[in-house]
Amino acid sequence: MKKGRMEAFSDGVMAIIITIMVLELTAPEGADPAALRPLIPTFISYALSFIFISIYWNNHHHLLQAVEHVDGRVLWANLHLLFWLSFVPFGTAWMGKNNFASWPVALYGAILLLAAIAYFILSRALIALHGQDSVLATAVGRDFKGKISPVIYAIAIPLAFVSAWLAYGLYVFVAVMWLIPDRRIEKTLAP
Amino acid sequence: MKKGRMEAFSDGVMAIIITIMVLELTAPEGADPAALRPLIPTFISYALSFIFISIYWNNHHHLLQAVEHVDGRVLWANLHLLFWLSFVPFGTAWMGKNNFASWPVALYGAILLLAAIAYFILSRALIALHGQDSVLATAVGRDFKGKISPVIYAIAIPLAFVSAWLAYGLYVFVAVMWLIPDRRIEKTLAP
Amino acid sequence: MKKGRMEAFSDGVMAIIITIMVLELTAPEGADPAALRPLIPTFISYALSFIFISIYWNNHHHLLQAVEHVDGRVLWANLHLLFWLSFVPFGTAWMGKNNFASWPVALYGAILLLAAIAYFILSRALIALHGQDSVLATAVGRDFKGKISPVIYAIAIPLAFVSAWLAYGLYVFVAVMWLIPDRRIEKTLAP
Amino acid sequence: MKKGRMEAFSDGVMAIIITIMVLELTAPEGADPAALRPLIPTFISYALSFIFISIYWNNHHHLLQAVEHVDGRVLWANLHLLFWLSFVPFGTAWMGKNNFASWPVALYGAILLLAAIAYFILSRALIALHGQDSVLATAVGRDFKGKISPVIYAIAIPLAFVSAWLAYGLYVFVAVMWLIPDRRIEKTLAP
Repeated sequence: MKKGRMEAFSDGVMAIIITIMVLELTAPEGADPAALRPLIPTFISYALSFIFISIYWNNHHHLLQAVEHVDGRVLWANLHLLFWLSFVPFGTAWMGKNNFASWPVALYGAILLLAAIAYFILSRALIALHGQDSVLATAVGRDFKGKISPVIYAIAIPLAFVSAWLAYGLYVFVAVMWLIPDRRIEKTLAP
Repeated sequence: MKKGRMEAFSDGVMAIIITIMVLELTAPEGADPAALRPLIPTFISYALSFIFISIYWNNHHHLLQAVEHVDGRVLWANLHLLFWLSFVPFGTAWMGKNNFASWPVALYGAILLLAAIAYFILSRALIALHGQDSVLATAVGRDFKGKISPVIYAIAIPLAFVSAWLAYGLYVFVAVMWLIPDRRIEKTLAP
Repeated sequence: MKKGRMEAFSDGVMAIIITIMVLELTAPEGADPAALRPLIPTFISYALSFIFISIYWNNHHHLLQAVEHVDGRVLWANLHLLFWLSFVPFGTAWMGKNNFASWPVALYGAILLLAAIAYFILSRALIALHGQDSVLATAVGRDFKGKISPVIYAIAIPLAFVSAWLAYGLYVFVAVMWLIPDRRIEKTLAP
Repeated sequence: MKKGRMEAFSDGVMAIIITIMVLELTAPEGADPAALRPLIPTFISYALSFIFISIYWNNHHHLLQAVEHVDGRVLWANLHLLFWLSFVPFGTAWMGKNNFASWPVALYGAILLLAAIAYFILSRALIALHGQDSVLATAVGRDFKGKISPVIYAIAIPLAFVSAWLAYGLYVFVAVMWLIPDRRIEKTLAP
């Protein structure tokens, strides 16, 4: 089975997720900067979520580069990832509306945790299909970042009730860690 | 006529349908779990609809794999399917907002029934174009699941007025039945 | 210049237009059929608009089949068409909300007229690029339906102030006329 | 790394941005032309933004034509461009709702300025990857329009507090300047 439509559908869903989030930034009635001030938490929340969805798209792109074919299990593992990513706009909006209160920040972390687990399952399903000796398996390698990210989220979630900004700082830390694109696959694929 | 743009347009519409449904989950003003409680029916409703649209995308993908070309009739049969699928967000929202009352559950079943019939018409239009001896016709085969699904929906719709949860259980049953991707086509296409 | 991205962008915009229209069908709070009754005009309005966007997508698909390359003028003629099509959801909603009053029905006709003119300009820009002896020019041919549609819209718009349903009937007539896909291009391209 | 998915994702995001802007044009309850009058500023605002997103899509299309491959830096430069473009609907809505008051017009200019800088960075990242002697570098050339546009925006932003319509006129001027598609790349690529 070819990977083309799975890429196209994923691109579509991620493009919509990243764009509808901005709809939460409703234009206020007042025409001065004071009218924009209440939107600042929503803006900060949106900016981080834009980066997270971008990271997922980027890594998805890199992962699929090394893929030769897909099967039913991979399609469902991919849809499972898109399911949790589809909650990012909700988590973003709840966090932004409530000015980074503990519960919304914890829920946001839970959505990120579930998406990270789903991405891990997807990459394992792809390796299972291509074999442990495949270019893909070599390229994914030890996958340090993929394994440490859910651990950081799992630590951040309870921390949100101690300090929401500390938890949020940990999310930002994970984002920064991933912002350097996954050069392992690029390196392995290069001649 | 090539199938590429029909696939791309269908991917686009299904990606949008699956993503805009989550907009019904409006972030509440309160920042504690109690504020999320009223959203639980909407969440359950959304999760099932996500799975149904995923199943349609998955089966559409499998069906089109075996297709070599399309014609005007196929394009319209496909648009007819997308028309009914476009009501899934409405049915999902009505059901979620009214906590699975009888009428919304029955309407949801009616939308699923109309989409199932439209999918059946699409597969027949494709077989008519490729011939009864084609790889596609062999791959679709007896199409037991495609024929039993509308029957179950037709039974579930009146049952919604006896017990909405019984009807909903039947929808879940159909979803579970389909979750196993359509291996018939994969098997026939495999060398 | 290749036509691939122009097709992809047009598919994306048309897929979004056709899907966001259904957002006007807001799920009501009441859980019985009476709660759905006020939505009937919006539903009728949506169904016709779905068919119109489907016709445009279908004809766009047929037209681009015979196209070999595009240039800057064609890209802008295409964006001009998408601009007017992007008003179809607004026209649909205004007409549905106001139960087919004269002004909304007239405006809907005006949007259809402007889109039809834009489509005509696009097809001429493509013929100008490919030459009067090209497969495309032969395939488009006399383009009777493309020329009569704007005339019917121009007649329907003032008629909306006599009888909105008469004007609406003329729009339905144009839709039915186009529902038969454009076999001229298929015929000319066939070996 | 191939450019296909970067093009597809960008097409998706730009198609959604251009289409969701029209959702700001909420259909009014009244059924006469007077009910539409308050929407006129929103319409004017939308029309210009439609043209700006179209120009970006068009130039993006032209730029990527000459591109042979992409890397991680290019992917992030592209996501950076999409980030600022995603604020165009917000800027458009704020400007339309407040009838072109100074602050909203200035913010709109700031969004255009940031998007223009992001586009400049993207084109430089692509040239850095392909080399100063590449077809791409020759095609982009001196890039007069790409350099003058941010300068005009930077002048227009403070001018918005003198006369919002003067600033708006400068935005229109930039749009008109770009409406002539970028023939440099077309010319260099032509045999």
